[in-house]
Amino acid sequence: MLLAIPTDEILQRQKAFLTRLEKHGVEAAILFGVTDIFYLTGFHFHPTERPIGLFLAPNSKSHLFVPALEHEHAEMFAQVDEVHSYPEYPGLRHPMEYLKEELIAAGFEGKTIGLDADGYGSAMGYRGPRVSELLDAKEFVSLRGWVEEARAVKSANELELIKESLRWSHLAHRLLQKYSKAGVNAMEIEGCASHEASMMMLDALGPGYKPYGGYGHNVIAVFRGQVGPMSAVPHAVTQSIMLKHGDTLVTGADAAVWGYHSELERTMFVGEASKEQEKYFQLMLGAQDTAFATIRAGIPARRVEEEVQRYFRENGVTHLTRHHTGHALGLMNHEAPFFDLGEETILQAGMVMSVEPGIYVNGLGGFRHAETIVVTENGMEMLTYYPRDLESLIC
Amino acid sequence: MLLAIPTDEILQRQKAFLTRLEKHGVEAAILFGVTDIFYLTGFHFHPTERPIGLFLAPNSKSHLFVPALEHEHAEMFAQVDEVHSYPEYPGLRHPMEYLKEELIAAGFEGKTIGLDADGYGSAMGYRGPRVSELLDAKEFVSLRGWVEEARAVKSANELELIKESLRWSHLAHRLLQKYSKAGVNAMEIEGCASHEASMMMLDALGPGYKPYGGYGHNVIAVFRGQVGPMSAVPHAVTQSIMLKHGDTLVTGADAAVWGYHSELERTMFVGEASKEQEKYFQLMLGAQDTAFATIRAGIPARRVEEEVQRYFRENGVTHLTRHHTGHALGLMNHEAPFFDLGEETILQAGMVMSVEPGIYVNGLGGFRHAETIVVTENGMEMLTYYPRDLESLIC
Repeated sequence: MLLAIPTDEILQRQKAFLTRLEKHGVEAAILFGVTDIFYLTGFHFHPTERPIGLFLAPNSKSHLFVPALEHEHAEMFAQVDEVHSYPEYPGLRHPMEYLKEELIAAGFEGKTIGLDADGYGSAMGYRGPRVSELLDAKEFVSLRGWVEEARAVKSANELELIKESLRWSHLAHRLLQKYSKAGVNAMEIEGCASHEASMMMLDALGPGYKPYGGYGHNVIAVFRGQVGPMSAVPHAVTQSIMLKHGDTLVTGADAAVWGYHSELERTMFVGEASKEQEKYFQLMLGAQDTAFATIRAGIPARRVEEEVQRYFRENGVTHLTRHHTGHALGLMNHEAPFFDLGEETILQAGMVMSVEPGIYVNGLGGFRHAETIVVTENGMEMLTYYPRDLESLIC
Repeated sequence: MLLAIPTDEILQRQKAFLTRLEKHGVEAAILFGVTDIFYLTGFHFHPTERPIGLFLAPNSKSHLFVPALEHEHAEMFAQVDEVHSYPEYPGLRHPMEYLKEELIAAGFEGKTIGLDADGYGSAMGYRGPRVSELLDAKEFVSLRGWVEEARAVKSANELELIKESLRWSHLAHRLLQKYSKAGVNAMEIEGCASHEASMMMLDALGPGYKPYGGYGHNVIAVFRGQVGPMSAVPHAVTQSIMLKHGDTLVTGADAAVWGYHSELERTMFVGEASKEQEKYFQLMLGAQDTAFATIRAGIPARRVEEEVQRYFRENGVTHLTRHHTGHALGLMNHEAPFFDLGEETILQAGMVMSVEPGIYVNGLGGFRHAETIVVTENGMEMLTYYPRDLESLIC
C-alpha cells in the first residue's frame, strides 16, 4: 500500500524541472508557490504571513528559505540540500533582505532568473518588496505555471494516491447517502458521514497515513449548501438546512492522502424524483457521457467542452448551464488545464481531470455528477465507481 | 443571539472605505481580495480559478464582478447595487476583457484608480493580464492593506461573533482534553472532539447559524502533529501518532461563526509533567503574563514583543524561541498587525489579537498557550477563559 511519494520521485521532479530550465536558458529559479514547493521538495507546511521560498539552479545545491519556526521542520521533511531561515516576519530586518543575502551567496546575481511570482504573496498581513527590486539579474523571466504543468501529468505513484483518496471518498459518500433523509439537518449528515469515514480511514491505513490536508476530517462528504432549490447554486456554501421530501441534493466527497485529492459528486433525490427532476438528471448524464466519449490524449482540452456544449444546445438547455465541464486536480482541488472553450492545452495520457457538466434550474435544483478520470492514449479510465444512475441515488 | 453582521453595518463599512478613498484623492477602487470582498459585501463564496472583483467609487453604484456560476448566488447575498458576470474562465474571451468593459461603463477610465492587487490572483490555474494593462487611468495607486487595516479594529457585533466562536472552541477543547489519554491516536481524539462539538454547536445555535468557514467541522480542536517531541515544531502538521505517557501536547481550537474565527491553544501533558516540562511551562506562562501586562491602546505593537523578548533574555531562553508573540485575527486566522519587533502599528482599542509566545525544546516538546484578547484603552480584555495553570492541563 502506497501512502507517500517516494523520495527518489521527488528528486526526479527537481531534476526534470532543472532540465527544463536549462533547455530554456534559465540559469536559476526562485519559487514561492506553496503547492509547487511541496511538489518539488515533499515539505508540507501551513503557509502564513511568513515567506517561504525554494531556490535552485542546474548543477548546484537546492535551497529552501523558511521562517525560524519551520527550520527544524524543513530539515526533517524537505528534500533539499540546504535550509536557511530568518527570525520572523515583519522582523527588525525584512525576511526578503535575508533571502537577498542567500541568493547572492548562491551566486544568483547577474544571472537569468526564473520566478513563479515576483515575490512572496499572502493575504495574511504580508507586505514586502519584489524580487526584481532586490536582486541584480541579467534578466527575470516568468516561470508562472511551469510546475503546475509538470504536476498535470500524474505518475503511477500519484495515481495510486488519488485512487486511495477515492476509496475513502466513496465510503464517506455511501454514509452520506445512507444518512440523507427528510427532516435531518444537512450539516449533521455531512458531519456524521465525514467523521465516521475519517475514523475508519485512520484505522484502516494505520500510522503510515499522512493526510497533508487541512485541519479537521481526512475525508469529507458534503452538500455545501446544495440542498433543495439552493442546489441550483453551483457553489452554494454550507448552511444549516433540513432535507425535505423531494429535494434535489448535489454532493461532493474528497479525501486527502499525502496531499493528493480526488473528486466525486452526485445528484441525489430525497424520497423520490419528479418527472422534471428526472428529465434534467438524464440530460446531465448524457452530457457526462458526451465528455467521456470525447476525451483522449492528443486533442485540445477545449474539444471536450465544445462537444458538451453542442450536446446542451441540441437539447435546448444551454441557458441552464453555468460553468465548464471540468478541471485538472491532484495536489489542489482545481488545477489547470480545464475542459473549457478557451483551453488550447493538448490532453496527455496521465492527466487526471474532473468531468462535471451541470444543469441548474432555478426553483428546482442543480444536476451535476463529478467523476475523476485519467486521460489515456485512446480514451480515458474512470477512477470513480460510485453508481451514477437515478435509481441508485434516491435516498 | 447575534449570528451575522447586520446589513447596515456592511453598508457602513463600504461608506467608511469610500470616505477614506475620497480623503486620499482616489476616485475609484477595484478589489480582488476574497476576505476583503466578504467584509465589504457580506458575500461568502469559494474562490477558484475564476476571477471575482469588487469595484466601487464615491457617490456611485457598487459593483460585484463574478463568474456566471456565482451570479444568482451574489444577487442573493452580496450587498452591492449591481452584479455583473462573465461566462467562464479561461473562456473564449478572457474574464478580464469583460471586467474592462464594465469598468469603462462605470466611468473608471482616466481616473485615479486604487487597486489592492494589479489583477486577480489564484494558484488554481489562473493566468491573466494586469488591470494596469487593461485600463487607461490617470494613475494607479495601491490600496494593499487598506481593508485589512479597517478589519483590524472590531465593532461590537464583530466581538460578539468572536465570543460566540470562543464558546464552541472551549467546548471542543474540553472534549479534546477529556479524550487525550496514552495509547489513543491523536487524530482520533481530534476527530471525536471536533465532531461532537460541531454537532452540539449546530443543535444549540439552530438554523440561523452560518459557519462561512471551509468544508468539514464548524469547530475544531486539534494537535496538528504537536504531540510528544514533535510538539517542539511550532507548525507541525497532522500526523497519525499515539499519545504516550509524559508527552507534551500543544493544542489549538477554533470555530467559524459567519466567517469569524478565534484562537485558543493550550500546552497539556499526558499523565504527568516532569520537572523539566514544568520549568518551561511556567516560563511560558510568565512570557504570556508579560505580554498581558504590556498591551494597551496607544503603544506600538512592537512594544509587546520587546517586553516578551526582554523576559526571555532575562530567563536565558531566547535560543528556545522561534516566533513572535501574536497576530491579529478575525475573518482570517492570521492578520496584520503582529506583536513583532518590526511592527510599528499603534495598538487601538477593539483590535483582537492572539497572545502566544512559545518555547521549544528539541527532544522534549513545545510550550505555548494562545489566548484571544481585545485591546482596550487602558489594557486588554481576555476573551479566552480556559484554565491556564499546569494542574488543570494534565490529562
